[in-house]
Amino acid sequence: MTKRIAIIGAGPSGLAQLRAFQSAAAKGAEIPEIVCYEKQSDWGGLWNYTWRTGLDEYGEPVHGSMYRYLWSNGPKEGLEFADYSFEEHFGKQIASYPPRAVLFDYIEGRVKRANVRDWIKFSHSVKNVTFDDGHFHVTVKDLPNDSVSTETFDHVIVCSGHFSTPNVPHFEGFDKFPGRVLHAHDFRDAVEFKDQDVLIIGTSYSAEDIGSQCWKYGAKSITVSHRTAAMGFDWPDNWAEVPLLTHMDGKTAHFKDGTSREVDAIILCTGYQHHFPFMEEKLRLRTANRLATADLYKGVAWVDNPDLFYIGMQDQWFTFNMFDAQAWWARDVIMGRIGIPDRAAMKADVEDRIAREDAGEDDYDAIWYQGDYIKELIEETDYPTFDVEGACMAFKEWKANKKKGIMTFRNHGHKSVLTGTMAPKHHTPWKDALDDSLEVYLQN
Amino acid sequence: MTKRIAIIGAGPSGLAQLRAFQSAAAKGAEIPEIVCYEKQSDWGGLWNYTWRTGLDEYGEPVHGSMYRYLWSNGPKEGLEFADYSFEEHFGKQIASYPPRAVLFDYIEGRVKRANVRDWIKFSHSVKNVTFDDGHFHVTVKDLPNDSVSTETFDHVIVCSGHFSTPNVPHFEGFDKFPGRVLHAHDFRDAVEFKDQDVLIIGTSYSAEDIGSQCWKYGAKSITVSHRTAAMGFDWPDNWAEVPLLTHMDGKTAHFKDGTSREVDAIILCTGYQHHFPFMEEKLRLRTANRLATADLYKGVAWVDNPDLFYIGMQDQWFTFNMFDAQAWWARDVIMGRIGIPDRAAMKADVEDRIAREDAGEDDYDAIWYQGDYIKELIEETDYPTFDVEGACMAFKEWKANKKKGIMTFRNHGHKSVLTGTMAPKHHTPWKDALDDSLEVYLQN
Ligand SMILES: Cc1cc2nc3c(=O)[nH]c(=O)nc-3n(C[C@H](O)[C@H](O)[C@H](O)COP(=O)(O)OP(=O)(O)OC[C@H]3O[C@@H](n4cnc5c(N)ncnc54)[C@H](O)[C@@H]3O)c2cc1C
Ligand SMILES: Cc1cc2nc3c(=O)[nH]c(=O)nc-3n(C[C@H](O)[C@H](O)[C@H](O)COP(=O)(O)OP(=O)(O)OC[C@H]3O[C@@H](n4cnc5c(N)ncnc54)[C@H](O)[C@@H]3O)c2cc1C
Ligand SMILES: NC(=O)c1ccc[n+]([C@@H]2O[C@H](COP(=O)([O-])OP(=O)(O)OC[C@H]3O[C@@H](n4cnc5c(N)ncnc54)[C@H](OP(=O)(O)O)[C@@H]3O)[C@@H](O)[C@H]2O)c1
Ligand SMILES: NC(=O)c1ccc[n+]([C@@H]2O[C@H](COP(=O)([O-])OP(=O)(O)OC[C@H]3O[C@@H](n4cnc5c(N)ncnc54)[C@H](OP(=O)(O)O)[C@@H]3O)[C@@H](O)[C@H]2O)c1
Repeated sequence: MTKRIAIIGAGPSGLAQLRAFQSAAAKGAEIPEIVCYEKQSDWGGLWNYTWRTGLDEYGEPVHGSMYRYLWSNGPKEGLEFADYSFEEHFGKQIASYPPRAVLFDYIEGRVKRANVRDWIKFSHSVKNVTFDDGHFHVTVKDLPNDSVSTETFDHVIVCSGHFSTPNVPHFEGFDKFPGRVLHAHDFRDAVEFKDQDVLIIGTSYSAEDIGSQCWKYGAKSITVSHRTAAMGFDWPDNWAEVPLLTHMDGKTAHFKDGTSREVDAIILCTGYQHHFPFMEEKLRLRTANRLATADLYKGVAWVDNPDLFYIGMQDQWFTFNMFDAQAWWARDVIMGRIGIPDRAAMKADVEDRIAREDAGEDDYDAIWYQGDYIKELIEETDYPTFDVEGACMAFKEWKANKKKGIMTFRNHGHKSVLTGTMAPKHHTPWKDALDDSLEVYLQN
Repeated sequence: MTKRIAIIGAGPSGLAQLRAFQSAAAKGAEIPEIVCYEKQSDWGGLWNYTWRTGLDEYGEPVHGSMYRYLWSNGPKEGLEFADYSFEEHFGKQIASYPPRAVLFDYIEGRVKRANVRDWIKFSHSVKNVTFDDGHFHVTVKDLPNDSVSTETFDHVIVCSGHFSTPNVPHFEGFDKFPGRVLHAHDFRDAVEFKDQDVLIIGTSYSAEDIGSQCWKYGAKSITVSHRTAAMGFDWPDNWAEVPLLTHMDGKTAHFKDGTSREVDAIILCTGYQHHFPFMEEKLRLRTANRLATADLYKGVAWVDNPDLFYIGMQDQWFTFNMFDAQAWWARDVIMGRIGIPDRAAMKADVEDRIAREDAGEDDYDAIWYQGDYIKELIEETDYPTFDVEGACMAFKEWKANKKKGIMTFRNHGHKSVLTGTMAPKHHTPWKDALDDSLEVYLQN
């Protein structure tokens, strides 16, 4: 009997999984029956922009965390699909930090060609996954029809992302603050904060990029409050880095060092939760946002039941190409091409990854660590090998460019590790490029 | 064996239910075992203000739809608990349109005295309710402990409210609108819209009151767009009523009559969904927001399984006192004091209520219809009778006052139908009263 596989989510990870199976089929293999459930009405995951925030038209939490004018925060040379280059998709090499719409187009290009759209049930939200008698029971809500049904599968592959459910801390005085308090997840348009004094909490990518957007689109000032350490870039004059917020008193923000300032809006860039309310407890991943996740053998197979897989659950230097490496590997386990060791060996694998990550000293170690992880997976499958080292070097250049100019790093180009061509310098410096449409970006 | 009763929600409806059982116990009756699950960390339902929007700290949808500076939109004389007057609570008569914090205090006063807090499991979110073998199985998530458990009950009383899950229509151009688009559910502070041109969609209470708040706190202009009919009050000069939005083009809103105007923010006051994702399909109420709900005998007992009750699911002229009447009635069914007829009779009751509502011609008919409904329920229980007709008259005066001055109706006082005393005129006209704290409101 043909195995049945459920894939939860059709973002980059779920699409990688569909493409992995389709590519095996294209090479003549017999593949299992595949059903991919996607709660949104289109694919692309976070890259599928929505103006909605909070709850959607069906009362479901809105998945999208992306916002208008978002450009890739890392060089595209670090995420290029090894089986589908940017040049193949766009017919030419393009600049290195594409806006969201351009990357959406690229993601979509590969899966359109692979012809896998029919495998996806859109507007279907997975509500419950249980395991007994050797099978998974997946309960799904058909949102437009408001009806629930349950199907049985041999494997489940969770590709639901982990940058969607916000981590929203409380600070004293938020309930009396006269202005907007929002999490990055609900940020949509920097124009809203024009002429405002904006307070940002957090120091990671959301803080850096949302702050930069607000600055670019005319905020009066940006104040970034840190819990651990300041980002320490060479910021514009109207940008300040301050210690952690202690409390708000009306519009006045008070910080740990005793200083204070008036602000008009507060954006919590405080990260996300790994949140899988639809997985029964014994199947539910609980992990910090790190490179070596808890309880996943090879970062993919659920140690307590390796018929279950999680894709893309790591913190991410690499993204699309890492999801591919994981998806090809999960596919090969399911198709019996790769064996799974006993539980003790799986546990030891997890421990070892955690120890090796912990031994790293800086971001460069982390990048190479994740690069090595990708190489390790690729070696076990037929996913096209690529110059992972070269991609690591692109990240290294990127970091150096950020240090030189946090508002100018996106003006640089990097070399594709697939085609070897250099990306052109973009026609307009990022800070002056207010139109983020695909048409305008491709005018190189 | 003592029956076990699950109450879902500790807002005004759930608290009415707790008070109903406690009052029977106080009179010497043996009452069932009661467990009330409340997903928030405190009671009061919508009246328990939160600065949060979207998802809460546990990734659950935020229940709260109330905002800062909200004052009662109807006279308090229409909602007074028949067993606990405002004078009893505050030690004096107070003005007729109390701000949220004052009404929260009043709601809390009664249940503190009844000593029912221990019956409530706070931060417990009901996830699934099923029925088989004559029992209800209620699956609940303990949010801080992130653990799920299931208990069995003889009756379930759903008191989870129906003004929390927003109805959020899409209009063309929202995805490119440079500014904030939000639903009333996420509205928190009118100060955010100071000096802005605000577009509001919808013409019911949220539209009227959120528009008025924005006007009061300094919005540059308010434009209200209607699908069916304009509200038609005598609005301030910087307030316009226009036909339905057709689409946005950048910041420009286009309306059905071909007119257009530039706006800075869009607030969708488009109502709420009756949303019970935690009820299995065969137990799930599906109804429009109206006075005669679908499928509830006496507006309370689930026709297909009258061991299940829904409280407060009607559209609301009356609120707290109606929830009380319903809760006392449900209690008496559970305690065997009131009998339930056969299914056909229950169905006929529902049909009859719908037909009678449909026969009404205007808001006055609707008010009296709901007043009669309350009288009908009260007559069957020991809930203290009160002058329902007098409460209807307070609503009538209120409507007349709104017609005379939409920004001044809250300056009037009404007569308590319990104590017979007139409410004092408030010390400050609503439009000049910027501080909505309890302390300031009670300075009469
Ligand atoms: C603001 C922001 C900016 C980012 N920018 C970049 C960038 O510039 N470059 C980069 O490489 N990466 C970026 N990322 C990282 C991003 O995580 C990845 O690019 C990628 O989107 C992850 O893919 P995914 O498929 O694992 O998850 P997602 O993209 O989150 O997709 C998950 C999918 O699962 C669906 N889903 C979830 N729950 C259910 C359910 N119960 N039932 C059915 N379907 C469900 C969702 O609707 C969604 O479509 C960014 C992330 C954020 C938050
Ligand atoms: C903006 C706004 C303003 C209003 N102003 C007025 C007014 O001025 N005067 C007036 O009389 N009425 C007003 N109302 C009407 C309001 O509906 C009632 O006053 C009252 O709050 C309804 O009480 P309830 O208990 O039925 O529902 P709610 O107040 O909504 O309480 C429901 C409770 O159930 C809990 N809950 C929900 N789901 C779950 C779950 N799965 N598990 C556990 N707990 C759950 C919620 O957390 C909440 O505490 C207003 C409503 C809105 C939206
Ligand atoms: N394309 C783009 O430009 C773009 C833009 C935004 C985001 N992203 C992506 O989105 C993903 C998520 O990034 P993220 O920045 O949202 O999350 P993140 O990397 O997990 O960072 C979370 C931040 O929140 C802080 N924080 C958490 N809890 C806090 C609390 N209680 N008080 C104060 N600070 C607190 C953390 O501080 P500590 O350091 O003290 O722990 C950290 O700075 C990343 O993959 C990123 O690449 C990309
Ligand atoms: N204390 C207060 O001051 C206060 C403030 C706000 C709310 N409330 C309470 O909150 C409750 C909810 O009131 P509400 O106003 O939010 O909801 P509501 O009474 O259900 O009204 C919904 C409104 O949205 C409109 N609408 C719905 N879908 C639409 C669409 N697709 N396009 C255009 N318009 C659409 C409806 O128009 P149609 O008429 O065309 O159907 C209607 O005007 C009420 O009980 C109210 O008393 C109280």
